[in-house]
Amino acid sequence: MTEPHSAAEPMTAEVRLARIALGLLVEPGNRELGLLTRATGPVVALARVVNGQAGSRLRDLAATRLSGRDPYRLAEVAIERADRLGARLVTPDDDEWPHRLEDLVQISRAGTRPIDKDTMPPQCLWVRGDWPLAEALDRSVAIVGARASTAYGDHVATDLGYGLAGRGWTVVSGGAFGIDAAAHRGALAADGITVAVLANGVDRPYPLSHASLFEQIAGAGLVISEWPPEADPHRHRFLVRNRVIAAATRGTVMVEANARSGARFTLHRARDLGRAQLVVPGPVTSAMSVGCHEELREPEVTLVTNPGHVIEAVGRIGEEFVAEPRGVDEPHDRLTDIQRQVLDGVLPRKVRTAEEIGRVVGVPPREARQILPALCALQFVVPVEGGYRLRRPSDEK
Amino acid sequence: MTEPHSAAEPMTAEVRLARIALGLLVEPGNRELGLLTRATGPVVALARVVNGQAGSRLRDLAATRLSGRDPYRLAEVAIERADRLGARLVTPDDDEWPHRLEDLVQISRAGTRPIDKDTMPPQCLWVRGDWPLAEALDRSVAIVGARASTAYGDHVATDLGYGLAGRGWTVVSGGAFGIDAAAHRGALAADGITVAVLANGVDRPYPLSHASLFEQIAGAGLVISEWPPEADPHRHRFLVRNRVIAAATRGTVMVEANARSGARFTLHRARDLGRAQLVVPGPVTSAMSVGCHEELREPEVTLVTNPGHVIEAVGRIGEEFVAEPRGVDEPHDRLTDIQRQVLDGVLPRKVRTAEEIGRVVGVPPREARQILPALCALQFVVPVEGGYRLRRPSDEK
Repeated sequence: MTEPHSAAEPMTAEVRLARIALGLLVEPGNRELGLLTRATGPVVALARVVNGQAGSRLRDLAATRLSGRDPYRLAEVAIERADRLGARLVTPDDDEWPHRLEDLVQISRAGTRPIDKDTMPPQCLWVRGDWPLAEALDRSVAIVGARASTAYGDHVATDLGYGLAGRGWTVVSGGAFGIDAAAHRGALAADGITVAVLANGVDRPYPLSHASLFEQIAGAGLVISEWPPEADPHRHRFLVRNRVIAAATRGTVMVEANARSGARFTLHRARDLGRAQLVVPGPVTSAMSVGCHEELREPEVTLVTNPGHVIEAVGRIGEEFVAEPRGVDEPHDRLTDIQRQVLDGVLPRKVRTAEEIGRVVGVPPREARQILPALCALQFVVPVEGGYRLRRPSDEK
Repeated sequence: MTEPHSAAEPMTAEVRLARIALGLLVEPGNRELGLLTRATGPVVALARVVNGQAGSRLRDLAATRLSGRDPYRLAEVAIERADRLGARLVTPDDDEWPHRLEDLVQISRAGTRPIDKDTMPPQCLWVRGDWPLAEALDRSVAIVGARASTAYGDHVATDLGYGLAGRGWTVVSGGAFGIDAAAHRGALAADGITVAVLANGVDRPYPLSHASLFEQIAGAGLVISEWPPEADPHRHRFLVRNRVIAAATRGTVMVEANARSGARFTLHRARDLGRAQLVVPGPVTSAMSVGCHEELREPEVTLVTNPGHVIEAVGRIGEEFVAEPRGVDEPHDRLTDIQRQVLDGVLPRKVRTAEEIGRVVGVPPREARQILPALCALQFVVPVEGGYRLRRPSDEK
């Protein structure tokens, strides 16, 4: 196999297959492989990994998984399997790649322990669900927390998920028991968009009892993973996965966490990435809030108690870091009270008539019919077949 | 009455009576009267207030309360009444005056609403209890919060009061229902020192059902007030009083507070004075924590969940602002673990034998007997008749 002289490779099926193979052969985040891939492109990187030019460590890692097979053939098998499940592959070469993930390159630190060194962006993502990935993640917030949550934590996470999704924000979490599930369910209840970032194949419901939850999430939003279909949820993969949750979103909200919770790791990744670090307090008598309170004693962490607080924080972050502010990012406080009240009844996906909207928010239908065209003109809402829904970034195209 | 040319007046009975009269005739904190008193001394200030040279407003205020009587005679009546109750008068001319209160001069702002303008230090304080006032307040923390507290708030305030008092810190509060009472009771349960700062005469139990609590506080610590005996607890006096709670202590801990709680006012006074602002979080679902969480969203407010957090914050403040660090202020972390463990069993007032101390903290009596002399040498503890107690500032004299 010969190497091109330029790092720019054609966007061919070969490039996609090489990315898949690299994702299969080496655990995600690997610093050496990430830097190599960025320098040479995936095809050359794969060749070098396999033939040992990229160092014996990467070669040995790859050889263990290859067992003498052709890496391109392994990639084809993975993609065929994904096709059968209705999952698709998204790579950095695709339009729907969320470029926010590339910030992960900057936090990888040579010479540190693997979990801090191997923070490179995913080679590719396996995706279930129809929503374009970048669009779903554009205005997104992570909600993370304890698996062994309390009723209090579940209540708060559900409320936050519901309130954020209802105001057009995508709720990202890890699909686990406890806070994760509560946040996803809150977003689903608001007919909003929610994204589960798994630490195993998108075809593997883990935990098993969340199988129907994952079906609902894939139906209304997205289930995504760096690991190929059939990959197992190894323990160390959860921490590795957490960097993607932090990087894909504008900020991370931690709801309940004991002193040693993995959710704190996600929050620290948000800090490393310059994203908003938001934490919900709880009773000081609860072990499940100890980690939250420790974080809240750090000056750069912001206490939040409701969706408004979260939006205030990530909206600001958004203004600082997002290249082109969209119409939908316009501050709501330019609206009149009644306009805001009507807007609260407009959902991101589900289409409602002016009458339905008026009924939900308690505004007379006649007024709702007058106000909705104004909200369309102000680019908060779009008129569609059968009524109105919230405006999406893609509506501009 | 002739005026001396110097502001320095002799420390006579006349000066004390003049201070009492000024405290009786004009509500505490008055900016004009405070500045005048500092400039001319109390005797001249009183003469000018009465004869109108200090302006018609002060003259009219005083005339309303004098009704033609002699101000010195009014003061004598007040002090006779205090004598009968076993209360004493402490003025800025006395050794036991807590000079930290003088910081209040710096936060008084001309041209603002009365509550922000009239923040001058008390003219004098009426005191029930044996402890020298300045000594009791030297290492002190305020614990304030809602009157309509929840069981959670009462629990936390009691724990904080107990833990702080048990580690030699004086717990200052306002003697009200709810958080105040819980904090006082926690300190009493630890055999510690607690100070109730009332907004009415020290002979008036308000609330009435706290009569026996105030007796206990006066027995173990102090009950103090700027208002003379028999003064009523008018509504506006509570906010005026709060400046004394903030100024007398090294920091204020707020435990529960609804959005409009007066406890927030005390916390803001602590902020104005550069004292530590410490707040305990609670469930975001509790209206009684809304004020706490709003304060915790301010960058200069520190979240605390236990006495250690509080001491960490006020200890630091103490090092910065207290003129001469005393032996008892030495950082505990210079001690070994076992020394610290033994020290935890030594109380500020109640004398314990080495055996009792060992039993309480779970250290064998023989070891406790060996360690206590070292703690005495390090100036944490003093040996007294019948055992040991914590060292006080006055032990140096």
